[in-house]
Amino acid sequence: MNAQVKLEEMDVGYDIPALPGMAEAEIQTPCLILDLDALERNITKMGDYVRAHGMRHRVHGKMHKSVDVARLQERLGGAVGVCCQKVSEAEVFARGGIRDILVSNEVRDPQKIDRLARLPKTGARVIVCLDDMANVAELSAAAVRHGTTLEVFVEMDVGAGRCGVIGAGTVVALAQAIEAAPNLRFAGIQAYQGAMQHLDRYADRKAKLEAAIAMVREAVTALEAVGLKPELVSGGGTGSYYFETASGVFNELQSGSYAFMDADYGRILDAEGNRIDHGEWENALFILTGVMSHAKADKAIVDAGLKAQSVDSGLPVVFGRSDVTYVKCSDEHGVIDDPAGVLRVGDKLRLVPGHCDPTCNVHDWYVGVRGGKVEVVWPVSARGKAY
Amino acid sequence: MNAQVKLEEMDVGYDIPALPGMAEAEIQTPCLILDLDALERNITKMGDYVRAHGMRHRVHGKMHKSVDVARLQERLGGAVGVCCQKVSEAEVFARGGIRDILVSNEVRDPQKIDRLARLPKTGARVIVCLDDMANVAELSAAAVRHGTTLEVFVEMDVGAGRCGVIGAGTVVALAQAIEAAPNLRFAGIQAYQGAMQHLDRYADRKAKLEAAIAMVREAVTALEAVGLKPELVSGGGTGSYYFETASGVFNELQSGSYAFMDADYGRILDAEGNRIDHGEWENALFILTGVMSHAKADKAIVDAGLKAQSVDSGLPVVFGRSDVTYVKCSDEHGVIDDPAGVLRVGDKLRLVPGHCDPTCNVHDWYVGVRGGKVEVVWPVSARGKAY
Repeated sequence: MNAQVKLEEMDVGYDIPALPGMAEAEIQTPCLILDLDALERNITKMGDYVRAHGMRHRVHGKMHKSVDVARLQERLGGAVGVCCQKVSEAEVFARGGIRDILVSNEVRDPQKIDRLARLPKTGARVIVCLDDMANVAELSAAAVRHGTTLEVFVEMDVGAGRCGVIGAGTVVALAQAIEAAPNLRFAGIQAYQGAMQHLDRYADRKAKLEAAIAMVREAVTALEAVGLKPELVSGGGTGSYYFETASGVFNELQSGSYAFMDADYGRILDAEGNRIDHGEWENALFILTGVMSHAKADKAIVDAGLKAQSVDSGLPVVFGRSDVTYVKCSDEHGVIDDPAGVLRVGDKLRLVPGHCDPTCNVHDWYVGVRGGKVEVVWPVSARGKAY
Repeated sequence: MNAQVKLEEMDVGYDIPALPGMAEAEIQTPCLILDLDALERNITKMGDYVRAHGMRHRVHGKMHKSVDVARLQERLGGAVGVCCQKVSEAEVFARGGIRDILVSNEVRDPQKIDRLARLPKTGARVIVCLDDMANVAELSAAAVRHGTTLEVFVEMDVGAGRCGVIGAGTVVALAQAIEAAPNLRFAGIQAYQGAMQHLDRYADRKAKLEAAIAMVREAVTALEAVGLKPELVSGGGTGSYYFETASGVFNELQSGSYAFMDADYGRILDAEGNRIDHGEWENALFILTGVMSHAKADKAIVDAGLKAQSVDSGLPVVFGRSDVTYVKCSDEHGVIDDPAGVLRVGDKLRLVPGHCDPTCNVHDWYVGVRGGKVEVVWPVSARGKAY
C-alpha cells in the first residue's frame, strides 16, 4: 500500500490506527505495536528449543488472541497448534485455519458445550479439559448429537488453585469415564502451574514445578497401570517450560508470553540470575503513546491510561528510557515524571505493558513495525471473546 | 423477539451474549448486565437534582461509551449532551444523534485535530479543551480548513495533577487567544477535580473542592474583567457534584458513574456518613459470571477474570451475598471463597465491578434486564475508541 495514503482518505473510517507503509511517527495513539524483528526472533528461538528437545509446542493463543500471530508461530516456531481458554476463542482460531485446538479450561454452560461439539466439523482437532464427572456425560451427549468426536484432557490442579482435580485416583476415574463415553476420547492430562510462573527466583519456581511434576508423574503411572497411557501431557509457561521439558513426563508445552514479553514477566530471573527480558526474550509488544499535555514543567501527560492496558501486574515501563518514568494511570491518561523537561507535546513513547494478556484484550489492532515503518496491521482476532 | 429463539439459531453468530426475551439464566457469561429499573431510577434522580438546582448536566459518556445510555440520560435525566475523552468517542456520539458534545481533554495529534474540526458538520455543537497556547493555532487552522466553528474550553488543573493550566492570568491569556483566533469561540472553563472523587470522607472531598472552586472563581473574575465572561463553567463528578452546584461558580456538571455505580465509588461516604451505594445511588451495572468448576470443596471458580473487568481499583464484590467472596482474579478465572460449599457449577453471580469505566471498555454489549428477563441488548458503542 502506498506510504502516502492517510487515514482520513480511508473509507473504513477511523478505527484503524495505521496503514502499511506509514512511518511509525504517523501511527495514531494509543495503540499496540509489535516490533516484528523481535517477535520473529522470540518465536524462532522457542521453535529451535522445542525442536531440539523433541517437545510439541501448543502456543497459548489466549495471550495474543491473534490468528496472524498463531500462524507465524506455526511457520517460524514449529507450533503444532494453539490452546485458548474460551469456546468463542476456539471458534476464531478454527475459522482462521488453526487445525489443533485445545480449550485449556472447563466448559459447562449447555450452549457453550453445544458450540464446542460442533467445532470438529471445521476439520480441527478439538480438545477440552474437565475436572468433574458430571461433565463427561454433558460433553458426550453434545458430541453424539453433532456426530463429532471431542478429545478430552483431565485437568489436574498442580498448585495454581483454580480448576482441576487433585490425586491420581480421581484422574484415573475420570479418564476411564471419558474413554467409556460415546464420542469422547481420553487424550491426556492438562497440568499448568500458573501460580509459580511469576516467582522471581529460578530456584523458587523450580521447587514449585518439582512438586507439580511429581503429582503428574504419579497420575501418569496410575493411568498406565489401567492401560490408559496419556497421549499428551501438556502444560508449562514462559517461567517454567524448561522444567516441564526436563521432566520426562510432559511432552507438550503451552508457553504464550515469551513471544511478546511484558514488564511483570521481564522481571523474573533465569538460572544465572539475569532478568529474562535481558537475554532470554526480547520485548516485542509495546503500547505506543503520545504526549498530549505538558502544562506542568516536570510532568508530561500521555494518552494511554486504564483503557489502553491492564495494570493488574503493575504500571507500564517506558522502554529504553531512564530519564522519564510512567508514575500514574487514570482512565484516559498516564502521568510521566519528566524531571528535566525533555519531552514535548506530540512525542511518542513505547511502553512495555505490565501484563500482556489483558492488555492485548482491550485493543482491536496490532500494528507491526520494522525499521521505523508500518509493515502489517493485524486484528486482535479474538478480542473480547470471553464466552 | 420470541423468547424461544436461541443464540445457536442466530445468523449473527455467537458474539451476542443474549437476546431480548431470554431469561436471565440463559445469558452467556461473562457479560455486563444492567438492572434497567435501578438504572432508570439513578438517571431520573440525578435529572430531578439538576433541574431543581438549575444546573446543566453534561453526562460523562466516557464512563458507559453507549449511545443508548446517553439517550436515556437525555430523555429521563434532562442531560444536555455528553462529554467524552477522545475524538473517536465524540464521532460515535455525534453519529448516534447526540447534539452537544465536549471532548473534555486536549487534542494535539494533527489527524485527530482534523477529524475534530470536521465533526460540527454533523450538526453537533463541538467543544474541546486546551491548556497550551500552541494548540490555539492548530485548532483554528483545522476549523478554517473545514469551514466549521470549534468551541473551546480552557482547562484548569484544580488539583488532579493531569492536564490543565494553573493561574487566572494563564486562563485569561488563553481565552483571549481563542477568542481572537479564526473559527474558534471561547466557550468557558473545564475544571474537573478527578483526584478527590474517591476520597472516602465527605469533609475531605469538600476541602479539596473548596480549593478548586476558589481557583475557578478567581479565573472567572479575571475573565469578566476583560469582557470574557465564560458561558459555561463545567466540572463535577459523582463524588462532588453537590459542591460544584453549591459553588455559584459552576453551571454545568459532568457526572458519569452515578448511573451505573461501582464498588470503589460505592465505598465513599455521604454527608451523613453512609456509603453512597446505600441510598444515594443504586448498583445498576454488574458482571454476570457463571461457576465453571468446584473441584475443591471450599472454592468455586467463575468465568470472569481480568479480561472481563479492570481491577485497578480493587476486586469485584459479589452482589447481595455475604456467604461467598471473590478473592482472586487471573486472566480468565475468578476464585470465589465458598466456605460452606453453597455454590454449584452453572450458578450465576452478579459481581459489582471495582471500577466501572475501564470495565465497560472491555465488553462489547450491555444486556439490560428487568424482572428476570432480557429486555434490551445495547452495544458498547464506543468501546475501544481510544484515539
